[in-house]
Order: sequence, then structure tokens, then C-alpha cells
Amino acid sequence: MAGNSFGQVFRITTFGESHGGAVGVVVDGMTPGIELTTEEVQKQLDRRKPGQSSITTPRKEPDTVNILSGIFEGKTTGTPLLMILYNSDFEPEAYVAIKDMFRPGHADFTYLQKYGVRDWRGSGRASGRETAGRVAGGAVARKLLAGRNITVRAHTAKAAGVTCHSYDPEVIEKNPLRACDAEAAKEMEKRVTALKEQDDSAGGMVECRISGVAPGLGEPVFDKLDAELAHAMLSIGAVKGIEFGAGFRVAEMSGSEHNDQMGENGFLTNNAGGIIGGISNGEEIVFRVAVKPTSSIARLQQTVDMEGKTRTIRTEGRHDACICPRIVPVVEAMACLVLEDHFKRQAAMLAT
Amino acid sequence: MAGNSFGQVFRITTFGESHGGAVGVVVDGMTPGIELTTEEVQKQLDRRKPGQSSITTPRKEPDTVNILSGIFEGKTTGTPLLMILYNSDFEPEAYVAIKDMFRPGHADFTYLQKYGVRDWRGSGRASGRETAGRVAGGAVARKLLAGRNITVRAHTAKAAGVTCHSYDPEVIEKNPLRACDAEAAKEMEKRVTALKEQDDSAGGMVECRISGVAPGLGEPVFDKLDAELAHAMLSIGAVKGIEFGAGFRVAEMSGSEHNDQMGENGFLTNNAGGIIGGISNGEEIVFRVAVKPTSSIARLQQTVDMEGKTRTIRTEGRHDACICPRIVPVVEAMACLVLEDHFKRQAAMLAT
Amino acid sequence: MAGNSFGQVFRITTFGESHGGAVGVVVDGMTPGIELTTEEVQKQLDRRKPGQSSITTPRKEPDTVNILSGIFEGKTTGTPLLMILYNSDFEPEAYVAIKDMFRPGHADFTYLQKYGVRDWRGSGRASGRETAGRVAGGAVARKLLAGRNITVRAHTAKAAGVTCHSYDPEVIEKNPLRACDAEAAKEMEKRVTALKEQDDSAGGMVECRISGVAPGLGEPVFDKLDAELAHAMLSIGAVKGIEFGAGFRVAEMSGSEHNDQMGENGFLTNNAGGIIGGISNGEEIVFRVAVKPTSSIARLQQTVDMEGKTRTIRTEGRHDACICPRIVPVVEAMACLVLEDHFKRQAAMLAT
Amino acid sequence: MAGNSFGQVFRITTFGESHGGAVGVVVDGMTPGIELTTEEVQKQLDRRKPGQSSITTPRKEPDTVNILSGIFEGKTTGTPLLMILYNSDFEPEAYVAIKDMFRPGHADFTYLQKYGVRDWRGSGRASGRETAGRVAGGAVARKLLAGRNITVRAHTAKAAGVTCHSYDPEVIEKNPLRACDAEAAKEMEKRVTALKEQDDSAGGMVECRISGVAPGLGEPVFDKLDAELAHAMLSIGAVKGIEFGAGFRVAEMSGSEHNDQMGENGFLTNNAGGIIGGISNGEEIVFRVAVKPTSSIARLQQTVDMEGKTRTIRTEGRHDACICPRIVPVVEAMACLVLEDHFKRQAAMLAT
Repeated sequence: MAGNSFGQVFRITTFGESHGGAVGVVVDGMTPGIELTTEEVQKQLDRRKPGQSSITTPRKEPDTVNILSGIFEGKTTGTPLLMILYNSDFEPEAYVAIKDMFRPGHADFTYLQKYGVRDWRGSGRASGRETAGRVAGGAVARKLLAGRNITVRAHTAKAAGVTCHSYDPEVIEKNPLRACDAEAAKEMEKRVTALKEQDDSAGGMVECRISGVAPGLGEPVFDKLDAELAHAMLSIGAVKGIEFGAGFRVAEMSGSEHNDQMGENGFLTNNAGGIIGGISNGEEIVFRVAVKPTSSIARLQQTVDMEGKTRTIRTEGRHDACICPRIVPVVEAMACLVLEDHFKRQAAMLAT
Repeated sequence: MAGNSFGQVFRITTFGESHGGAVGVVVDGMTPGIELTTEEVQKQLDRRKPGQSSITTPRKEPDTVNILSGIFEGKTTGTPLLMILYNSDFEPEAYVAIKDMFRPGHADFTYLQKYGVRDWRGSGRASGRETAGRVAGGAVARKLLAGRNITVRAHTAKAAGVTCHSYDPEVIEKNPLRACDAEAAKEMEKRVTALKEQDDSAGGMVECRISGVAPGLGEPVFDKLDAELAHAMLSIGAVKGIEFGAGFRVAEMSGSEHNDQMGENGFLTNNAGGIIGGISNGEEIVFRVAVKPTSSIARLQQTVDMEGKTRTIRTEGRHDACICPRIVPVVEAMACLVLEDHFKRQAAMLAT
Repeated sequence: MAGNSFGQVFRITTFGESHGGAVGVVVDGMTPGIELTTEEVQKQLDRRKPGQSSITTPRKEPDTVNILSGIFEGKTTGTPLLMILYNSDFEPEAYVAIKDMFRPGHADFTYLQKYGVRDWRGSGRASGRETAGRVAGGAVARKLLAGRNITVRAHTAKAAGVTCHSYDPEVIEKNPLRACDAEAAKEMEKRVTALKEQDDSAGGMVECRISGVAPGLGEPVFDKLDAELAHAMLSIGAVKGIEFGAGFRVAEMSGSEHNDQMGENGFLTNNAGGIIGGISNGEEIVFRVAVKPTSSIARLQQTVDMEGKTRTIRTEGRHDACICPRIVPVVEAMACLVLEDHFKRQAAMLAT
Repeated sequence: MAGNSFGQVFRITTFGESHGGAVGVVVDGMTPGIELTTEEVQKQLDRRKPGQSSITTPRKEPDTVNILSGIFEGKTTGTPLLMILYNSDFEPEAYVAIKDMFRPGHADFTYLQKYGVRDWRGSGRASGRETAGRVAGGAVARKLLAGRNITVRAHTAKAAGVTCHSYDPEVIEKNPLRACDAEAAKEMEKRVTALKEQDDSAGGMVECRISGVAPGLGEPVFDKLDAELAHAMLSIGAVKGIEFGAGFRVAEMSGSEHNDQMGENGFLTNNAGGIIGGISNGEEIVFRVAVKPTSSIARLQQTVDMEGKTRTIRTEGRHDACICPRIVPVVEAMACLVLEDHFKRQAAMLAT
């Protein structure tokens, strides 16, 4: 209800602020008897953590996860997993100077309007640091999906106006943008670095591909698989849009072009992006999300303070020049959470 | 859980199949003491019903709503509203010939995979007819929002490749496409009609604009206002994507271009589309959805039958050449449901 | 949230007022492919309907159920079942004379305080007539439980101060009280009739026995099987208490008396009532509920009117002298709903 | 869904096992801007913690709470509160000897049947230690209720067969049983001590009284205030029954005896226990719960081991001879959670 939980059967609840005591997650609805190590979770958190390259923030959070419940003798017990990351690299002083101004692009103004109080240390709960809990929870879902032979993999498809033209999954983890095209990656890095040097930042687009989902997954009407994936993705702070399969190109297409016809070996095309009527059709599930440029830039911008007076602001500090590579594991985590939840819901409905 | 309910406090549950006994909705969480007439609900249903123009299906459902509970002496009592529309223009025979084939673009195949049974009369539960319940529920939410001085208005922004270039709210209900640009509307109609004559159909894009929402609405983290609007919109059968404000253009923008700076009279731009950090910022809320071309076309297409053998199919019957104008009231209804639910959730959190 | 839905996976939403257009239920989360006839549902409704004997209300509702969605060719499709009973024997005039007074024992006063409006026709939504939707939904759950070899059977264990001393399931449906002891039943009937002739009514106690549940059903902590059964039972208007197994006698017992020891053939006793730590232990599940005397009595009582002035009232009309026999099928229905929901939740958790 | 969360708007999720890393709670839906200190929460935890007297377990957990999120500058921010208690006094060795046997009265057998795995350290998640999270969450709800002038107070009304005959709130916290009658308390203590010396334990009954709730609180139909209180109470491990107001005595009462008549100053009696039709009527809310004798006793009992062979067992260790005094703060905490949740739900429904 208050928006800090996600999923219905396989359900996570996250907590924590950027500069409070800790961030983390409770995972409820976990399958018992599953071998789970801290390392498996840490591995995904390491893909999300700051300081991975020159284009991501140098904040130095080790982001070490502690699993304090729900595991016994190396296996899950079916009771809630508490996974917690204590905050260490506090630097709230950096925010003191601007604590009475609203940073453009940030949720400072809207949170104050909603809650009537403002945690000015970093972005408080609105910080991207909150996604650590999602990634930890997603790592657990990913483990369960691996047992179903499902692979969830995202990459940066576009950044700073540069588009990938080929798809090579091998290169994704080998370039700082997590782009799927080694050539484009170099150009992206160049342009993002140039923007950074101009005290600016870059937007982009992340694509996610999910393989191994058999036909029949998803609920009808309101909880369509694509509706819940859209919910999951738009809940990521920087995401401003999502499209499945042919996406917004459908506005130029006719039915005869768009319909995926069928043959004896399945669908002849995949304009639907693997989902029809909200239910998986057995093809690869493909969607793309629009990622806005990092709001924190060192460039002077106009804003107002808490008295409503016009001021200028420069958001100094430690920021990502392009957030796409760090969004990639978050997109994957959220997709994993949606899928595992739907598998469990499907089992519930069919149970006799 | 099984996907037929939407909303948390202001919550609808829809029921009914295209060719079963009835379709409709139960609205729970209704404010008591609100004057509500059948006419107010009927008015929105009339905007959704078939047979409004040459480009929409000639199926003749009067779509007359009956409110059987939750109202006493003209006012809501706070108990559930049951709103029901009995089906009348059955024509299941039209479907007998193709009942063992999967219609391309339709959910025939995926529903069978999910449930193991197939209701071949029309699309059963997957039919667009299901949205009548949403529109009825949305009409009630709209009434409550009117009391908050909020206006929710959608239009076709693009269809059959033709884009609107001006925004005139007065013309929307006066052209068969519900386009916002009278000139473009004519061209759209021409092209949609041409496609129809070729036994084909047209996709498009619908835009929704919401005014009057004060800053501070929306939940943090997972239930961001944009995340729930995305969930709502992607739950509409034909919708394949959504974007807010600058949308997918963010991939080409820099932070200094995208950030909405502030002045003494509010934000200087609205790239965010009225929502920052998942919470309304007081600007107009603007989003666009991608609408796929109607799947039912009279043109021959390749498919397989229930034995997996390749066949050809022609989806005769009564279909919409472009579904955009009938999606418009559904988009509005879903947006109304999301907003009213969030207002009630906000009141709950703040209650002392 | 607003209290008109029950269950998490197998979920019902009821609607309707005593003297409105209809009462009924939407069942969501239904297993597809199950043969289901209107007769199976009607059979349970007939056990609940008024006019079955001299000690129950003579209101003449045929209580004929109509299933308008969710079934195709005699089988469930997995989509929502709408089951509706149109109201016919309206007699709201009976209530006009007392519409500005609060009937003692009824929810007139509390509903007005909550909602600010009052539906004075019968008890509106607070009427026992609302339970028809529960019984219809429960009949569907019962069908699924039968496939799991589970039997849910309730009876009147006490009424008007008379206690059953033997348990013979064969006699339950053969006496107007639905008592489990033929001798006691006669005495109960005598005393209830005597109270009725004095313009009074009788309270009682209903016991429910559930057999066939294997060990392992129920969720830990908050959703213990007994906690959810308690929730279900106390949601029935006339129920004022519940106890499992040894129940309130535990206050006089020591641990060595109360603990159910185990042997090679299972538990040696069943003080726990079949549930330990919120989870079924394989023994018969046994609980009892306290049923208050019918509030509507023709005897003069003191009350106040809507202006707060003291008045006297006589609740004439058509009422049950003892509601126990009609509570029996409602108790069974609610128990069926809880069990089926927990089976589906268990399947979800274990799904891999 | 998996049973580790409670409440709809004001919602807690608890985690942790008896001998794992920590136990605790996430509170979501918190009102922002409320002053909250660790001491306020600690105060309630101290009432629940072990080692308070000779009749409670000597396990030495300091039970120090840490609040790691949701508070800034001494006030709540409206984001989730994480409250955590690290486990310190591990003594799992005590359980090694009996780890392959099922302790009578404990959930060892049922948890193994449900999950297929067994955490044999203490009772794992089924331990009463889990209630620490409830008490911490309840302390926050209690703070909000204090602002509404509501008092929630429970006491031991009966233990080891001894009943309280007077009600003096002043003595409750001054005797080891938390009884409300100083004389009875002495007798209770004597008898419980005698049972303890015989390696046995005592059951009892706890009563809760809630004052200050205005008429109109509670949801109709399924989420009646008494139904949710029953759910809350039966979710406490040792509770086997609940009754409101006249409770099970209704089985001997007639309608004219039971109905609470009204006068100009309110109800003349309170047989209803403050709730009619599931909604508060403005009178004191009164209910009693049956508390089973502690299952862990040092006396020899018969059981089976994991191979199903008959064995004898003696549950040595550190146990409560009567759990009633430690259940008292848990009953209060759960009642506070239910009430605050309903206040917030009521505000949501009425919001315009």
C-alpha cells in the first residue's frame, strides 16, 4: 500500500535511505530447500555498486550483503530472508550547503510535498541506493529462474545518442557502458566522457531479453505479464518509458505487418515481444526502457529554495555520468522478480 | 492475484466474457454519500461502445449498464457497486469455423497454453469487451476526481502513420478517430479507411493529459505514480508501450537539457511529464501509449491449428479498423482509477 | 481493503444489500477445467435460504443462483465466476416505521457512524442475506476440496442452553436445528419455540469438523491456519467467539495434560484441534463458534432515534428464532474458502 | 501471502529465527513527521523480554532494538522503519540432543511437513522470539493511537485455574503474572511455581480492554474489526481461542438478555464487547484469549523421531512456566496494529 513492497507471492519489501543506517530487503514467499550463498547475491550487487568505472560515481560503498535470516545449513527454510547492507561511506556534509534548495530533476520537491518532511542527506529514500535491496532480492529470484532454465539479460542499447547496431552478449560485461556492441560502446564512452567534462550527463536506453519462458505465463486482464513488467521498470527512478517488441513502431504498422503469423515451428516473427494478451507465447521476451540523464550535474542550474525564492545550484558530489550500466542489473533484477512471482501464481491457480 | 482486480483502496474487480452472460465490475472502497446516476456511467460507456462510426466494429451491443448495489436514494452507501452489462448481440457462430485455429495477434494460443481450456467464442475473457467494466469503474473514479478539480482527457495523437500537429481539445469528440487535430483527423480517417478496404487495420498512439493534480501524489519506490499508470495502461490489450514527458527522447538528451529547472512560478519546462521520483510535481501529467493495429483482419494469414498443422485463416466478423478512438475512454478510465486510488492511499498515510 | 473480499489466491468479492437489486459474488483465482454445475452451488444455497422450518424466517426468497461468467461448456475457464441472486421478496415497507430508530443488537447505529448514510431497508449490507454470496463461493471451494478428499461439516452443538451429548453426522440435516444429537435436537426445538412464543430468540454454539487435511497446511506467523479460520468465522455477523480443540479449557490445563504426545500411528490426543504452530498436523481440525441470539425480536426494547431521543421499539417482521441452523452452511462455506486458499498458497510457495 | 506481513495500510513484515542472526520488523505505511524515540519502542520490548521473573524463561537476551531507517532528526519520514534486534544468547547446543525428535506441543512436526526442511535450533521461525518484531511494530502503532486518545491494555485474567475477581489496572505491571487482581496474582504465582517444580507448566486467559475508540471504526463483511482482532490474536503462537463481550456465554442467552439497549447516554450494557456488525459502537472494546500451557516441559513425554519411531523426550532448557505475562504485551501490540490500520483505512475510504 505504501509502495515499499513488490510482488504477490514472491514478495520483496525494501527499506533504507541513502545516508541512514542501512539499506536492504526482506524476501517473503521463498521456496524452501534451495541452496543459496551470500556470494550469489553479492555477485549481482557488485554489478550495481558504485565505483566500477570512470563513468560511474566514485562513492565507495563496499555494498557487502549480510543475510541474517531465512537460511539454515546453507539452504533456504521458506521463512523470510533479511538481506542488509550497512551504509559506510556517509558524506552527508556534501549536502548541507544545498539542503534548502530543490535539485532539478530530483525528487526533493515532490517528497517534501508528499510527506511534509525532507531527508536532505543525498536523496534519502529516493536515492538510487534503494535499488540495492531490489538487486539482492532479484538475485534470489534469478537463482530460482535458473532452475527453470530461464535467462534474463539486459544491456545498454543506446547512450548519449549512440545506438548499438549488433548484439553480442559476450561484450556486455566487458565495457563500462554494458553495451551489446563493442564498437558502439567505444563511441558511447567517448561521448559520455565528453559530457561529463562539460559538467553534464547522458541519457540512454536499456534493452532486456528473456529466454526460456514457455508459453502460458502471465495473468489476464490487469496483471498481464507486460503490465507487471512495465510496473516494475517504471518503478526504477530513472526510467521514463517502456516498449515491448515492435513498441512505438506499431503506430506506423498495419495489422498484416504486425501480426505474428504461426508455422509448425512456432511464430514466424516476434513483433509482440514474446507476450500476447498478457501471456507469454514462448518467444523471447524483449522490451526496452528509456533512461533519463543523471539529474545531478555540476553545471549551474536555476531552482528555488524552500521559501520559493529563485536560486542557482550546482549539484557537486559523486555522480554517474550515465546511469545506464548500473541500471542494467536493476532491470534484470526487477524482471526476475516479476517472472518468479508469476510462476508461483500460475502454480497456485492450477493447484488441485 | 489472478489478475482480475485493480487498485488497492479504490479497487475494481471485473468479470465476464465476450459471449457469456454478462460483463461488468464490482467497485469496492467507494466513498459514501456521493450522488451517482446511471447516466454518468452510461455516458462513458457510450464513448467506448461499438458501432460509433465506420471505422469501428458494427457489433450492436447497447451496452446498457445496470447498477444493482451500493446506491440508495441516489447516493453511494460506501458498500460495493455492482455494475453489470448483459450481453445481447451474441454471434458465436461466426467463430465456429475457426474455433480450432489460433488467430494471429490474438490470445487464443496463449490462453490455451495457460489454462488448458479455450473459450473460442470471440476472444472470451481476452476480448476488448472486458474493458466495459473498466470504463464503468473509471466513470465512478472520474466523478470523485471531478470533486478534486481534476480533468483526465485522452486523444489519438497518431494513427496509420499520421501524426497530430496541433492540440485542440474541442475537436477530439467530434471526429471518428478522437484525434486532437482536425486536419490530421481527416487524413487519418482516409488512410484507415483505405487499410480497411484492403482487409487490413491500423495502429496508432494515444496521448493522455491530466490537469489539476497538486504536487505530492504517488507512492515512493515500487508504487510510483508513473509505475502504476504504466501498469494500468499496459493492462489494456492493445497497448505495447508507454512513455512519460520527453519519453524515449531522453536517450538523446543530456542532463542539462532534460532537467526541469524551477522558477518562482513553478517548473520552467515539463520534460518529466508531471512526475518526479514517482510523485506528482504539480505540472500537467502527460503520457503516450503505443496502440497496436487490430489483430482481426479479413486478409488471409498463416497460422496453425490445435494439432499444430499449418493452416490459413481469415478473421471475418465485425472488427475495428483502428482501435484508437475506442481505447481513448479506456485510457482515461484506467488513469482515473489510478489517481483516485492514490488520493485515498495518500489520505490513509497522512491520517492521524 | 474495504472489506468486501476474502482470500488471497482463491478470492471472493461479495456485493449486494438485503433489499437492493441483487446479492452475489465474484470468485477469482478459480482452477480451470473443473466441471461445475449450477445445481452444486444451488444445493448449498438451499441449506442457507430462509423458510426451511418453523424456527427460521418465513421470508420467501427462492435464492436462485445464476452463473453469468467463468464457465464454458460445463467447465470452469479459470476466469472470474459471477454468481448472482436477484432479490425478489422485497418488503422494505416493514422497515419504514422504524427507519429513524436504531434496532438493538443491529448494526444500524454503527453503520451510520461509519458511513454517514443509512440504508434502512432491512439491514442493508449488514444483513445476513449478504452471506448468500459466501455460500455460493464456498460451494465452489468445496468442489475443489472434494477433489482433495476433504470433508467440511458443521453442526449446532448447543442452542438455547441445550448441549449435544453425542455426535451422529447422519442426523444433522434431519432436524431443524442441524444439531448432531437427535435427542438434544428435540429439546432445543422445544426451548427455541418457547422463546419465540415469548417474542424472544436463542443463542447457541456451532462446531465444525474438517477431515482429510494432511499435515503441513497453513502459513507461519500471521496467516496461521487457525488465525485465518478465526478471521473467517468472526466475519460472520452473529459470531462472537471461536475456540480450537481444547479451547478455553486450556486455562485450567497444565502442559503435560495439554500437549498432544505422539506415537507410531500419529497423535495420541487432539487437544490442539488439528493445528500446531498455525499448520495442520493431520488430525481432525475442530473448532467451535459462539452464535449470538437473533437481534430482531418482537419484544419491546429501549433504544434511541436518530436525534438521540429515547424510544421504544419492537422489531416486527420475519426473523429467525435461532440462527444456528442457517449459520451452519455459512461456517462450512467460510472454512472451505480458507482451506482452498491455503492449498493454493502452499502450491505457490513450493513451486519450482 | 506467505504469512509474514500483517495489516493493509499500516503494515508490518517480521523476519528472523530464534537462533539466527537477528529478529525484527519492517513497518510500512508510517505517518510522517511523528516524533519517535528508540526508548519508546524499547519500553514495550522490555515488557516482553525473557528473564523478568522466576516464572519466565531465564534466557538472557538484552533485546536491544536498533532503528536503522525511516527516521531523520528524531521524526519519522514516512518511509519504512527497519527495527532490528540482533540475537546474542545463542544456545543451540541445548537442542542438538533432541534435533531428530518432535517436541510435543511444538511446531517441529508441522513445519517439517510444510517446508520439508527443519531448523532445529530452538523453534526457528516458530519460536515466540518472533513476537519481538510484533511488539516493536506495535509500539509505533501505540504511539499513533495515543495521539487519538486511545488506550490499549491487557492483563492475565486467569492462570493455572485461578481467576481474577477484581480489575485494578494499577496492579497489572506490579505482579509477575500481570494479573489485574493482586490477591488472585499471589495464588496464581503459587500454583504456577508448584507446576514448575513438578516439571510442568500452566495455561491461562488474557483479557484486553481498549478505550477511547469512537463509534464507526471497522470494515463491513470480511474485515470486521472483531474478525481482524481475532486474526491478529490467533496468529500468536500460544492462543487457542478468542471471545468478545459476553463471548461463549451467548449460547445460554436470549435475545432480550443479550441485546444492548440504548439510552440517551449510550448503550445500557456491553454484551457486544464494543463492536456491532464489525464496527465499533463507542463502548469499551473487550475480548479474552485462551492461552495454552507452555509446551516445553522438563517432564518425560512420548513422541516419535524423524524416522517415525516412538521415543521419550524431556524438553530441558530455559522456558516459561506460564507464558501469560509475556503474552500480555504481544496481545496489546497486535491490537494496536489492527486499530491503527483500521483508522488509516477509514480515512482512505472517506477521503474526498
